[in-house]
Amino acid sequence: MFEARMAQGSLLKKVVEAIKDLIEDANFDCNNSGFSLQAMDSSHVSLVALSLRADGFEHYRCDRNVSMGMKLANLSKILKCAGNDDAITMKSEDNGDTITFMFESPNQERLSEFDLKLMDIDSEHLGIPEAEYDATVKLPASEFQRIVKDLSSIGDTVEISVNKDAVKFGTSGDIGSANIMCRQNKSVDKPEESTEIDINEPVALTFALRYLNSFAKATPLSTHVVLKLSKDLPVVVEYHVPDVGRLGFYLAPKVEEEEMEA
Amino acid sequence: MFEARMAQGSLLKKVVEAIKDLIEDANFDCNNSGFSLQAMDSSHVSLVALSLRADGFEHYRCDRNVSMGMKLANLSKILKCAGNDDAITMKSEDNGDTITFMFESPNQERLSEFDLKLMDIDSEHLGIPEAEYDATVKLPASEFQRIVKDLSSIGDTVEISVNKDAVKFGTSGDIGSANIMCRQNKSVDKPEESTEIDINEPVALTFALRYLNSFAKATPLSTHVVLKLSKDLPVVVEYHVPDVGRLGFYLAPKVEEEEMEA
Amino acid sequence: MFEARMAQGSLLKKVVEAIKDLIEDANFDCNNSGFSLQAMDSSHVSLVALSLRADGFEHYRCDRNVSMGMKLANLSKILKCAGNDDAITMKSEDNGDTITFMFESPNQERLSEFDLKLMDIDSEHLGIPEAEYDATVKLPASEFQRIVKDLSSIGDTVEISVNKDAVKFGTSGDIGSANIMCRQNKSVDKPEESTEIDINEPVALTFALRYLNSFAKATPLSTHVVLKLSKDLPVVVEYHVPDVGRLGFYLAPKVEEEEMEA
Repeated sequence: MFEARMAQGSLLKKVVEAIKDLIEDANFDCNNSGFSLQAMDSSHVSLVALSLRADGFEHYRCDRNVSMGMKLANLSKILKCAGNDDAITMKSEDNGDTITFMFESPNQERLSEFDLKLMDIDSEHLGIPEAEYDATVKLPASEFQRIVKDLSSIGDTVEISVNKDAVKFGTSGDIGSANIMCRQNKSVDKPEESTEIDINEPVALTFALRYLNSFAKATPLSTHVVLKLSKDLPVVVEYHVPDVGRLGFYLAPKVEEEEMEA
Repeated sequence: MFEARMAQGSLLKKVVEAIKDLIEDANFDCNNSGFSLQAMDSSHVSLVALSLRADGFEHYRCDRNVSMGMKLANLSKILKCAGNDDAITMKSEDNGDTITFMFESPNQERLSEFDLKLMDIDSEHLGIPEAEYDATVKLPASEFQRIVKDLSSIGDTVEISVNKDAVKFGTSGDIGSANIMCRQNKSVDKPEESTEIDINEPVALTFALRYLNSFAKATPLSTHVVLKLSKDLPVVVEYHVPDVGRLGFYLAPKVEEEEMEA
Repeated sequence: MFEARMAQGSLLKKVVEAIKDLIEDANFDCNNSGFSLQAMDSSHVSLVALSLRADGFEHYRCDRNVSMGMKLANLSKILKCAGNDDAITMKSEDNGDTITFMFESPNQERLSEFDLKLMDIDSEHLGIPEAEYDATVKLPASEFQRIVKDLSSIGDTVEISVNKDAVKFGTSGDIGSANIMCRQNKSVDKPEESTEIDINEPVALTFALRYLNSFAKATPLSTHVVLKLSKDLPVVVEYHVPDVGRLGFYLAPKVEEEEMEA
């Protein structure tokens, strides 16, 4: 059987809210090292990879590997019924066709059990190669969310360019153009506002803003987002779930038109 | 003539907000003991009964019995123009065809008068027999509101079952099933969070969630809601308006299909 | 070239939000005394006049008179990307076809530049004659906003009548009628709640509520709104932007039907 209890159930709620608009349905894979999910978005352009470590749960037991297919919209409906302070326990029998979510209010007076029917979902697990990146930028998650939202009101794509002092986000569209620059700032006073740049060589890549906006729905998970960029590699947009795991999004850069003609 | 003044006008606003989506138009009946309304919802399934006692008003005068027909949507439009701290005075001449609402701001600097045209509405007054109930459950109104809302995302009906220790709300639907249990808790520290169960015999009845959701719009009126349940009787969902009166909703239980076939 | 810097950039945001639903596109006229705009609303019924004085800016330079045509919806999109605490600098080369907006966050870590394409817009500058008004009413801007919103739920037009003690707003419609009276109150304790009336002779004029509701979108600009009324003259609805300038709206009164038939 599989059983896992998370005292801070709101984390699970946030994870599902972060990915439910991008992914229609997916397999949650459980083994004794943890709980993970990997799926392409419904337009097969970007990739989502979630992993929550066994030791990030208050209690975790997984007798044998299971893969549980769920429709994210239904999972979200159920998790919305958990209070923000509730502990959440997930339970599933081996070969069962449901997963049970148990919500306990802090004072134990309210106890809810929701059974969600599992689905069979075809999926292939893509290997994501470990890579050395040309540039890694860590910036406040809310700042990143705001930038991609702001630029979306002007254009459809963003060029992200990084040098050792700053990261720049640029776009243009019918009404004009926009450039937003965030300077490196290893602020000690307010670590949650720091912007840190780690660079091997300068890089400038272009991405569809629509997907970055979807990724930014993970903002409530973490104070910071990490962007990992390399020429010819998908960008990684990564949110660390403190003490529990990570949620990563992968998106291939747009090829410039001149290159395509070449 | 009829004239009644309520210093805490927001109570009237909340009462009308609580019933305006359920009832299209209704007669407000005034006599010298108070102000009341009884009406079926527009689909003729549930019944609403409101009574506000004369002594709950700061000033109350009713020379002879009057029945004033109003469209709830219009009454709501007008009461929305009252500030939350305004005193509200209602006035109507005998045989007049309007009712006047006077709103006074606390510092008396702003004085508003709204005249609403009265309507002729056919209505029959149903006698609601006093009954002894198998089970009476008093629980925080916001908790009840949340439970019926949460369950509505899973199914269409709820089975409410009460035993001496707890009340259970269960539903099921296409995506799975849900059960929420609230334990008895005569909390002395925080009386507003108490759940109290008074039971003659265990009872389990099924209701349409849609109506319970409508009833729960009365939540702002009161810290607690009282559910009164008996086999074969409509449930009473009751909100007490402190020092003024009560708003009660009545809904017949669903007959189980197996019983119907028997 | 034209260059102007406003430390409190939120003022510019509020100005544009106040007029963007009323005016589709307009010329912003800059000369060395300041920055102004005058335009009819898109239905050619009301007039908007904005003026921001050069000395209201932290830095202001305008080498020669320029008139910059912008679509307000696009300008609004761009200004929404400025943080509420950002300083905003506007820049435009002589004969340039764009205006640049530069947003600086308080700590200088975030620097954004937005270029907006300018448009050619035909416009005629109407002379607004200075007039002596029969009555001038200064009341809290939020109070005025609420009154015109409340009355809009009852009727389409409002009669504003002023005597030396009070200003009255009246309307009527299908469901009934309404009258709201605000008494003069030169409150010293809370100057932001004061209502001041300055009157030569009593006046009563009728206006379309729809436009007053649009004007009231300027409420965030100022604690008070000033209404200037004279028989046969357009009402002036005026918001002072502290230390910077003013935004005025002009609307002709409705002619009563009986007068029209006479």
